[in-house]
Formats: sequence, structure tokens, C-alpha cells
Amino acid sequence: MENPEAKTLGVGMVGYAFMGAAHSQGWRTVGSVFDLPARPAMSAVCGRDADAVRAAADRHGWAAAETDWRALIARDDVQVVDVCTPGDSHAEIAIAALEAGKHVLCEKPLANSVAEAEAMVEAARRARERGQVAMVGFNYRRAPAIAYARRMVADGRIGVLRHVRVAYLQDWIVDPDFPLVWRLRREYAGSGALGDLGSHIVDLAQHLAGERLIGVSALTETFIRERPLPAGAVAGLGGAGAGGAARGPVTVDDAALFTGRFGSGAVASFEASRFAAGRKNSLRIELNGDRGSLAFDLERLNELSFHDHTEPAADSGFRRILVTEPEHPYLEAWWPPGHALGYEHTFVHQARDMVFAIADGTGPEPSFEDGLQVQRVLAAVEESAEKSCVYTPVPV
Amino acid sequence: MENPEAKTLGVGMVGYAFMGAAHSQGWRTVGSVFDLPARPAMSAVCGRDADAVRAAADRHGWAAAETDWRALIARDDVQVVDVCTPGDSHAEIAIAALEAGKHVLCEKPLANSVAEAEAMVEAARRARERGQVAMVGFNYRRAPAIAYARRMVADGRIGVLRHVRVAYLQDWIVDPDFPLVWRLRREYAGSGALGDLGSHIVDLAQHLAGERLIGVSALTETFIRERPLPAGAVAGLGGAGAGGAARGPVTVDDAALFTGRFGSGAVASFEASRFAAGRKNSLRIELNGDRGSLAFDLERLNELSFHDHTEPAADSGFRRILVTEPEHPYLEAWWPPGHALGYEHTFVHQARDMVFAIADGTGPEPSFEDGLQVQRVLAAVEESAEKSCVYTPVPV
Amino acid sequence: MENPEAKTLGVGMVGYAFMGAAHSQGWRTVGSVFDLPARPAMSAVCGRDADAVRAAADRHGWAAAETDWRALIARDDVQVVDVCTPGDSHAEIAIAALEAGKHVLCEKPLANSVAEAEAMVEAARRARERGQVAMVGFNYRRAPAIAYARRMVADGRIGVLRHVRVAYLQDWIVDPDFPLVWRLRREYAGSGALGDLGSHIVDLAQHLAGERLIGVSALTETFIRERPLPAGAVAGLGGAGAGGAARGPVTVDDAALFTGRFGSGAVASFEASRFAAGRKNSLRIELNGDRGSLAFDLERLNELSFHDHTEPAADSGFRRILVTEPEHPYLEAWWPPGHALGYEHTFVHQARDMVFAIADGTGPEPSFEDGLQVQRVLAAVEESAEKSCVYTPVPV
Amino acid sequence: MENPEAKTLGVGMVGYAFMGAAHSQGWRTVGSVFDLPARPAMSAVCGRDADAVRAAADRHGWAAAETDWRALIARDDVQVVDVCTPGDSHAEIAIAALEAGKHVLCEKPLANSVAEAEAMVEAARRARERGQVAMVGFNYRRAPAIAYARRMVADGRIGVLRHVRVAYLQDWIVDPDFPLVWRLRREYAGSGALGDLGSHIVDLAQHLAGERLIGVSALTETFIRERPLPAGAVAGLGGAGAGGAARGPVTVDDAALFTGRFGSGAVASFEASRFAAGRKNSLRIELNGDRGSLAFDLERLNELSFHDHTEPAADSGFRRILVTEPEHPYLEAWWPPGHALGYEHTFVHQARDMVFAIADGTGPEPSFEDGLQVQRVLAAVEESAEKSCVYTPVPV
Repeated sequence: MENPEAKTLGVGMVGYAFMGAAHSQGWRTVGSVFDLPARPAMSAVCGRDADAVRAAADRHGWAAAETDWRALIARDDVQVVDVCTPGDSHAEIAIAALEAGKHVLCEKPLANSVAEAEAMVEAARRARERGQVAMVGFNYRRAPAIAYARRMVADGRIGVLRHVRVAYLQDWIVDPDFPLVWRLRREYAGSGALGDLGSHIVDLAQHLAGERLIGVSALTETFIRERPLPAGAVAGLGGAGAGGAARGPVTVDDAALFTGRFGSGAVASFEASRFAAGRKNSLRIELNGDRGSLAFDLERLNELSFHDHTEPAADSGFRRILVTEPEHPYLEAWWPPGHALGYEHTFVHQARDMVFAIADGTGPEPSFEDGLQVQRVLAAVEESAEKSCVYTPVPV
Repeated sequence: MENPEAKTLGVGMVGYAFMGAAHSQGWRTVGSVFDLPARPAMSAVCGRDADAVRAAADRHGWAAAETDWRALIARDDVQVVDVCTPGDSHAEIAIAALEAGKHVLCEKPLANSVAEAEAMVEAARRARERGQVAMVGFNYRRAPAIAYARRMVADGRIGVLRHVRVAYLQDWIVDPDFPLVWRLRREYAGSGALGDLGSHIVDLAQHLAGERLIGVSALTETFIRERPLPAGAVAGLGGAGAGGAARGPVTVDDAALFTGRFGSGAVASFEASRFAAGRKNSLRIELNGDRGSLAFDLERLNELSFHDHTEPAADSGFRRILVTEPEHPYLEAWWPPGHALGYEHTFVHQARDMVFAIADGTGPEPSFEDGLQVQRVLAAVEESAEKSCVYTPVPV
Repeated sequence: MENPEAKTLGVGMVGYAFMGAAHSQGWRTVGSVFDLPARPAMSAVCGRDADAVRAAADRHGWAAAETDWRALIARDDVQVVDVCTPGDSHAEIAIAALEAGKHVLCEKPLANSVAEAEAMVEAARRARERGQVAMVGFNYRRAPAIAYARRMVADGRIGVLRHVRVAYLQDWIVDPDFPLVWRLRREYAGSGALGDLGSHIVDLAQHLAGERLIGVSALTETFIRERPLPAGAVAGLGGAGAGGAARGPVTVDDAALFTGRFGSGAVASFEASRFAAGRKNSLRIELNGDRGSLAFDLERLNELSFHDHTEPAADSGFRRILVTEPEHPYLEAWWPPGHALGYEHTFVHQARDMVFAIADGTGPEPSFEDGLQVQRVLAAVEESAEKSCVYTPVPV
Repeated sequence: MENPEAKTLGVGMVGYAFMGAAHSQGWRTVGSVFDLPARPAMSAVCGRDADAVRAAADRHGWAAAETDWRALIARDDVQVVDVCTPGDSHAEIAIAALEAGKHVLCEKPLANSVAEAEAMVEAARRARERGQVAMVGFNYRRAPAIAYARRMVADGRIGVLRHVRVAYLQDWIVDPDFPLVWRLRREYAGSGALGDLGSHIVDLAQHLAGERLIGVSALTETFIRERPLPAGAVAGLGGAGAGGAARGPVTVDDAALFTGRFGSGAVASFEASRFAAGRKNSLRIELNGDRGSLAFDLERLNELSFHDHTEPAADSGFRRILVTEPEHPYLEAWWPPGHALGYEHTFVHQARDMVFAIADGTGPEPSFEDGLQVQRVLAAVEESAEKSCVYTPVPV
């Protein structure tokens, strides 16, 4: 039942592309599904193109549109700033919002560099003292199967951890004639598969393990070194004339493979690639402990695979738990058992957890500190890859 | 992009329980995802309990609340009546709405009897002449994998159909002490697994096959003949005293198994049960033709399994198509490849198709005639089950 | 360790085609894998073509070759007669062997008619009084996963049985130009998919359930009514001239679908087809009880799927037991855990169980009585199919 | 049909434990299944314990038993020496056999050191000039699905290779109280999971890729550093008294994780572990190219998963090829489509290929050179692991 006295929480979102659409779904839906301590109001969305942002506001249900993110932050009806822009503007917007007294939800990866991330953490630390909340959007933590896996690990169901193995595989640039989009250029994207996919799996591995990587050894590869410039490409990339014949250099990794060690002695393997033909958005993770194992596949996100190693061998095996029971995280609010959730539900859950964190005044997870630590792992990966794979500690 | 000149289409919904929540999700989301010829407005919701319906309106985003469905139908801001009540009131509400000039979306099964369904079809026929639309809510047709399977069958990809086999299995009443809820009593529910689950699979089988069953042979069973009366049970069920010891008779089927024939010569097998321990909401369907086969499992609703029998045997096999590509039905409007949809998306798609049907003035599928025909199949199933399984033709 | 004092048990096999090759593998291998109370000796094989049977003897390791099955039965070095001929000669050979004092292993189905099967049972009964053993070759009972499933059912792991559903699907005659081989003619094969595949699944369903079907309702279909006569076809089939244009009538079923009831109140569904494109040898069986469920797929014969319904719903699900542990039936004698067995191992296990049955003097399972009962079910299926699917009791 | 003029090929086997039993199955069965240019005769088996080897000979069908491998090599009725002993005696036996003019089949890994392997290669080179054959027993190459995958790669079905990822996971020493058996001591086993499991996956990865690794980066771990001495352990391990309390150091790796580069630019990831709870004998390998992908799982060894990336995205996906068609490698000789083979069939196929190699006078694959190269990869892995994971070239 709706709480008639629930206060309103005004949200302002910066950016309205893929992530903006997903976050809008989250904010629009959350109040209809969950009993919340405060009712989110979709106050305003911000983008540079006035017509486009107005259309996006209409489409996604935002009450107002802004073209200057500083104006959005300044609005009185905005208490939460949701940052959905590309990584190179995260730090500036998030820090400004925090300093303006707003709560901040920032898309992953937290920033394009460790230095930026450190500044964001410092801003969040100061803001926390003022009762503000800052969260980074590693949304996969909010898939119910992942949340339940985390609970099982915390409850000791897999015992002492030995192995984590995780791969995040896509295939959208297998074709060598796929154009040189901004995601394939370091100056815009920071890195390639590593930052985009690798940040997710580093966060998930650490979140599920309940501990942090202390060092990594890595290898990265760029299989296609030059690609056609996209239509309307900037001149600086090679002076593309009318034709599509002009090509420019790919300056990010196509794939990153790395191994790592946890402080507890467990070991981990990671693979992130955009060249795994047939794997569209395949994120598989497995944890092996001395009392059991867990496995998850994002392509079947309502399922969790669990092996209970304390059972007699003749009766044991990986069981497929359909994570749709009311006892499972987030599920009590949804449909009856056996009714599947999808990708975007992770954003509804993220919105829910953000609202509760604000109401409770507790720091939500993943915090900006968590986001910074993932950046440090990625930086260590890049350093190792540059230094012939040598084992590289992750700074604490 | 949003069409600023799109006219508004006011929706009024009767009922706000499980199905009402799902339909609300559909109406609330559809305009943010799809480009529509008209913008649905959630005008009013109706229920008997004033406080509860008001709370439901707030929660799900309906502008107004009504306690009398006749008042809802009479509202000027309602052009579409969405009937989400139990089956015993479908006919009365839907016919009244059609006669009042409203478009109607009616939950499945269309009615609790063939006679009611026939009256609804007649009302829909007259309404169609006035440009009104009537659709029955077999939402699983709108799972993208099902819609794509239908397209493949229509394109001849499986050739001449030989077999359809389908089972819809649940397990929520395995426990003999599960109480005698209304769904287990014929006077309220009409039938048991047959009407609830069987109607879905009969519709899906015929929809995918592209043809209709001409006869069936059936067996039904009620495993647990008596169950505890629920707390607060009506006296008529046996004068339950204070204790929970009182039990009443289960008057519907727990499971229904039937076979059938299509006009083309293909054969089909069906099974609907609430006693399949471990199967939460498992709807599996397979079609075999002389050029290929298709298989689908609702628990993995983003996947479609296809075997191309025209390929060399050494290279062929069931392939798992992840139905998340922009070329797949409904998918262009959603997320990038590999990002899963869930159960409730079928209601978003249903809302989309209803809006287009109204705008186009074309009869939507499944029509009330389709709903009536499913009722006739179910009636033939019940008749066969009463007559020692004898093959029973389905009236045309 | 080998028992040096183990006595020898001479085996004589009639027939050396597909089944003969499989049985030969069984007899050749069993003594190297299992500790046996008697050592099987491959004394003689019998076939009508002297050259061919001599070659088969050499190839498969039989010491001698015979061209007259009566001569084979009469041999002093034959104590066990293994009948691998087509069904129309089972009764004559098996009865003669039993009357000659030999133990008999007879391929399934036991016979082509109930009357023949009854005569065989009578012969086996008399032979049993003389200490002889008679077994019918439903080899799938000896897949370790099936044997373990049977043990779990017997141990009460799935509780009170509610459902059995089983399908045996193949696709080798999907092409309408596949020739009219003997298996498609009633005079030779008795029936089509029903006898060939249906006999297996009726036996498995009853074996796993631990009880017998009491009645069935059935539908059979022949999709392709005429087929090209094979090269060298007998004139009687239509006077085929030189060309391949001549066609003859298919006189057996292509597919059989039936439902059934067990005495306990459980219900069952069966499907046997040779028209399921892409399903090569797919035998899937599932049992649902009130304490759990079991599922098996012959294409993954080292795996058993088990759902324990007594566990909390949030932690339960179908687990995939890899049936390769030493505690599993037959497995102690084989490889370490995780090393797969194949189809032919069922024949090694069958040979093992036959040897032990002879040594123990106990009637082996499945007995000729079991084989007769399966014939009675199949006869009831055919009767029901002829009588508009009407429910037809299985004679006790 | 058997070729009556086929000459006999006498086989002598050294060792009769797990591998000896598997090889025996291969030699015993091969002639009954395949048409061979020469008929293998199981002449003699060799082991140190006279009684035990005699029993093994009886059980597995070897005509004679020897207790001195030099005597076995010297026998006139032995033309092929099959070396199934632990790795530390491979070099001595294999070289002696080659120098005595015998063909040699040697179990994997070829040797415990690169130096030994080099000496074996040199002996094999000299023997080849005399027409002798030397093969190393990487039996998994002979799983039909692997052989077919190799053919597909060679035919260009996956195009330019980008990724190989492979893991071989077991769980038999998860329990910290599992005793300190010889496999966990470097002086006997050479290495742990790396040599035992890693050798298989390095061979498979290179075999399927059709090219060799040029460098690796590796991390190894021993999770349990001390284990209980087994009953009857040698005194040198710590002077175990009567009790089971004495423990000794584990001196091999429990797990090895490594990445690698192929000369073509493709990258690979490897993981071998005995600590993956619930994974009994799980060997999974996937290859991604720019035209397609292949995946295989040893626990489902009759299946091959193939994605054809040249098909339209909407219709493509990983297909499950059941590798049981007569067109598949080795399958024509076996059962009809859909009938599964098992682990030991790889040894039957190995025996077949060895016989053909001898008859044809061509060097079989994998050759001793192939075995040496795998040893060099493993040595580079160990070197990298000792040097902080630094990228370590594999000597050519």
C-alpha cells in the first residue's frame, strides 16, 4: 500500500541516451512496485540539444528539460542528480552536484582516471558528513540472482573461496569494417573492453567474493588496428574526404585477459572481449569454495546455479535456482514464482536502493570508494599489460 | 522521437490485482518505448473497495479511481476499457463497454463458458462495424521469441507441420494442505489448470501452427479431493467451525492431459498441471515440421530454439537464438542485443499492439473470435474427459 | 580381481545386425569390467548367410558360427541363448531355447503379439522351475542414471507420484522419399513408432514409477501413407518395375500419442514419433511427486536431474547429478567421477545382470512377464486408437 | 567386413592401472568396430607384481604377463609397445622400445621434463627413418566432437581466430584432509594440475587452433600446503607414526591459470584446477573467430556447439550439433544417429589411428614432437609463475 505521507524526492538526470533511457525506466517504475520511504519525482532531464532533450523528457516522463547541467543541479525540485553521461564528464558533474548539496547516482565506470575518481571520492566523503548519499551504478549487483548469490556467499554457503572466474563477452566489432566510433578511441572512451566490460566484472567479482583484488597480471590486445572513419568523422582522424575509404587508428583494447589474487589467497581469472562471435552480452561468473560453488550467466539472469559440496557426492550437482521466489531479493514486490525479470529491472532496483539509502542516511553500496577501487584495479591491469604481464599490485 | 501531434487515448481499467498490476506496467511504459500513433492516458481504474482502489490508482499511476465499472465505462476520458477481473464478470463488462462505444481489451480466458464467449463475439462484431476494436489478452503471443517463431512458421521455415507438443506446468498446490482458494472451486473459476494454463497453451499452439484444432481426446484429474478451508471461508462450504480442521471439496481439475488433431493432419499433445514439483511457471512448446523444428521455454523467454532440417545432418542441430536483435519483433525499441526482457514486457507489447489496432482500425489479434474458439476447444476437452477420453470434435 | 575358480557360461547369440553388435560388445567387455560369479564365453553366433555369419563371428569375437538357430541351441557350449532377431521370430526361438534348458535373453519388444508373449511367459514359467532364467532386453533400465532414478523413487525421494511424462522422438523418416523399408510394414514389424519406441517408454515409465498402467487413451497417425519401394522390393508390394517410381503403402504408425493412468492415481503422457525433425534419439522422461521430481534425457545419458521439493523454495531447483560417482549403480567398476559412459554400456550392464541372475538363480528384471505386460499396454494403445481414443483398460 | 588376409599386429602394454584398463578396452574393441589394415593382438601386459599382472592379463584379455618391461619389449609377438606407466618412466621405456624396433604409443604427458622429452623425440626421429611410428596419447583429440571441430576450423568455418578459452576443472582434493598421495608430490608427479590437466588443454587448444602458442603468462597456487600422510606413507615424509596426525608438504600446484599468445595474434586463456567444487571432470573449450565460434564440454562429449557468424544475426545462435552422424569422424563404424559414445571410445579411436599410422607408414598425430612442444609450454608456464607472471616465450 502507498504511504500517503511519503515525502517526494526530486530527481534530475543528466544524459538521455541508452543509460538515460534505462534509468528513466527505473525512476518511472520504482514507486509502483516497491513501498518506498519517499516518492521519486522525475523533475528534470538535461542534455545539450534543446529540441532533443525536450522530446526525451516527453517520452520518458520527465517534467522539465534543461540544456545546462549546472542549471539542473541548481533546481530546487532536484534533490538527486543522476549522472548518465559518458565517463569523461562524470567527475565534473558529480562533484558539482555533491557540492551543491545533492545526492548523486553516477553511472559506471566512476571516472576515466584514478585521479578523477579520487577527487570524486573526496567530494563524496565531505558530502556524507552533510548527510548526502553517493552511489555508483554497477547495476548488475541488483539482478536478484546476483544479490542472492552475494547473500549465500556471506552466509558461508560456499565456504572458503578458492576460485573466481568471469568472462564478459560481446561481438559487436568482429567485423573489421565496423567504423571507428568514439568507443574505440582512447581520447573519448579511456579504454576499450577493459573499462566498459572489465569494470563490471571486476566489481562483480569483488562484490560476490566479499573481498578485494590485491594484484593482477594482464594481457590486452587490439585485433583490428585501423578502421573506417564513420561518416562525418572529425578531420583530425585522417582528413576523411567524401569516400568511406579513409581509416583511422583504433586506440583502445579490443580484449583484455587478466588473472588476479585476493587477499585471502583465492585466485581469479577475467576476460573481457568484443570479439567473441555469437556472444552478444554474455557475462558468466563462477565462484568455487570448499563448501560449494555458484555460477551465473547474464543471458539467463533469472537463474542461479548452486552446488552444495556438503551433500553426498552421489546426490549432488549444480542446481538451477529460479530466482523468482518471494524470499529472493527484490522479488516480493514483483510477480509470482517463475515469472521472469529482465535487464532493466536492475535499474528499478537501483532506484529503490538509492531511495532507501537517502531515507536511511546510510552510505549505499557500491559507494564512490568502491568505484575508485575498481578504477585502481583497471589501472593496475593496464600497467601490467604494458609491462609484459608482470604481476602488479593494486594500491590499497 | 515523440510525435507532438499524437492524440491521446484514454484507458480505463477494471480490476487491479496481479493482472491489473501487469497491465498498468504496460500502459505506463508503452509510450516511453514505442513510437505510437496515439498516446495512452491512464485515465481511471475501477474496483469495489474505495480505499483500496484509490491506493492502487496512486501506486500504479491512474489519474482517477472508480468503484462502479459502469461509471468507469461512462467516463468521457475513457476510450479503451481494459478488463482485468476474474472470468465470471468478463462478459458483462466487456459487452457493456462495447455497447457504450469503447474499445475493449479483455483478459484471458475470454469467458467462463462458450455461451458467454459467443455473446461477447456478437457484441464485438457489432462494435467492429462502428470502428471499435476488441482484443483478448493472450499476452504470451507478445513474447518476442513467440512472435518471431510465428513469423518463421509463416515463412515456411519449418515446412509442413507434423507435431506440436506443449506443457504448462506449475507446482503451487502440491502441498495437500494448501487451502481451498477460489481458484480451486468451479463456481468461481470455471475450471482449474485447464482454463488457467490450458487456455494459454491452446491459444499458443494454434497461433504458432497457424491453424485450428479440429478435435481432442482428454483426461483430467483432481489429485487432492479435499482441502482445508481458508481462514474466513464462506459458510456454505461446509460450516467450518473455529478450527482449521474443516475441509471442503476441490471441484476443479488439478491437471489436464489431452491430445488433438489439426485440420492439416498434424497432431498435438497438451499437458497443464499445478502438480509438477519444481516447475514454477514452465511453459514449453515444440513444433516439428518437415523442414525444421522450433522450441520455446517460458522460463527462458528471450531464447528460441530452431533446427533447420534443410541443412546437412552433420552440421545441423537446435540453435539457441537470443531473441534480442533489432530485427526481432518489438526489439528495435528496446535495448542492445543480449539484454534480456522479462514477463511484463509482454504487456507493454500488448498495449502497443492495441494502440496500433485502434489507430489502424483493423481488428487486432487475438480477436474475441479467437478467444471463443479457445473456449470451444476447452469445452471439447471437458466433454472428452467426461466421456472416457473419446475423441471429441471442436465445433467450427 | 578375477576369480580363478569362476565357472564359464557359454553364450550363443541369434542375429548379428545392430542389436547383435551391441550385445557382442556387452558380452566381450563385461568380464573385464565387473567381478562376475561366472565368466561368459562367446561360444557361437547364428545367422542364415554362412559367409556373413562367419565374418560377423570373426569380427565380434564369437568362437563359432551357425546357420541354424536350432543347431545353436543344441550346442553343449551354449548355456545362454541371446535372441537378437526381429520380433517375429522371438517366440519360436526363445521358447525352443527354454525348452532345451537354456537361459534366455530376448531383445525387446518381447514379441509382435500378446498371444506370442503369453506363450513365452508360459515357457519361462516352466523353465524357472528348472532353475532357468529368462530376461527381456529393455536395456535403458541399465543406464546408470535410470537405475539411480529408480533407486531414488523406491527410496521415497519423490514421494507420492503424480505425473509421468515421456517422449521418445526420432526423425529418420521425415523425408517422404525415404523408402518403404520393412520397419514400415505391419506384416514384418508389427507396428511402427509404437512398438519400436513406445515399448521402451512404457517399460521405463512403469519401471521408474514402480507400478503399472491400468488404462490408456491413444491416437496414432501415419503422416506419409505411401513411400517409394526400396530397390529389390518384393513384387507383392505393387509389382515395382525397373524404375524407382513405384510406391507402396505404409502400414504402420509414424507416431503414437497416448495418455494413461496408474493404479495409484498418477497420470502419464506418452509420445513416440519418427517425425520430430532434429530429434535423433531423444528420450525424455520426467516424474513429479509430492516430495520431488526427476528428469532424464537419453541424449545426455550420464546426467540425472533431481528437484528436492522438501527444501526451502528459495534454495531449490533441478540439480544436474552427473551419474558417474562410485556410489551410483554400475559405476564402481568403471572410470573416475566425471568420465562419461555411452549407449553401449547399457548392454555391458545387461550382460552383467544376466550373469548374476543365473548365478543367483533369481528371476532377473525385466522378466518375460514384464515384457508381456508391456505388450498388453501396446495392444490397449492400438485398440484405443482404433476406437476413437476411448479409454481402454490394460488387462491384468 | 573382416579382411581375412589382414596381418596381425602384436601389442605389449606396460602398466595396467586406470590408463592400462582404458587402453585395454581400446585394443580389445577396435577390431570389432573398425575395418583395419592389421588386426591388433593383445600379446602381453607388463607390471612389477607377478600375481597382480597375471590377474590383470586375465581380466583385460592379454595373452601373456611379464614383470620386466625389457622382457616385454624383447618379445617377438610384440610390435607395438603401449606405455601406460607414470610419467617418470616414459622416457626410459619408450626410448628402449624404439631402439628395439618397436612402434610406440606413450601416454601423456610425454615426459616429466623437457630434457627427457627431447631425448624421446630424437629416438622417435631415428626410429621413423626405420619406418617406426611414435605417438603420444592425447586421447581427447579422438573424441568425435573434437575431431569434427578440428575439421571445421581447418575448413575455415570460424575464419580468423581471435580467442581460445579453456578450463579443465576437477574437485577431488577440495577436502583439506584428502591425503598426500603421490600426485601431490613433485618428486613423483613433476607437477600438479598443470601437468595432469594443463597438458591436455594446451594440446587441445593448439590442436584445434592449428597453431602453436608463442608465449605465456602464468600464476599457480597451492591452496592447501600440508596434508595428512597416507596410511603406509614413506618415512622420509615426516616420520609418520602410528596415527594419522602426521602431515607433509604438498609440493605441486593445486591450480594453474595462464594466458597466452598464438603466432597469428590470437590470444588464449587457460585454467586448470583440482579445487573447483562440483566440477568432476569438466573440460570446456571455446574458440572465437571472425566467421564463427565453436564450444565443447567434455561432460557432454557427444555435443559440439557451433555459431555461424556469417548468418543473419536474427537467425543465428549457437547450435548444438549431436556428433553422432555417420559423416562425423569415427562415427560411421558405430551406432545410429543419437546414440552416445563415452570416454573410453577415445581409446578405441586412438588404437584405430595407431594401427592405420603403422600400416600407412606415416607419422601419426600427435607425434612425440607435439608432446615435446606441450612440455615446452608447460615449462614456460612454470617459469612465468616463478617470475611474477612475466610473459615468457615458448622456445620453438
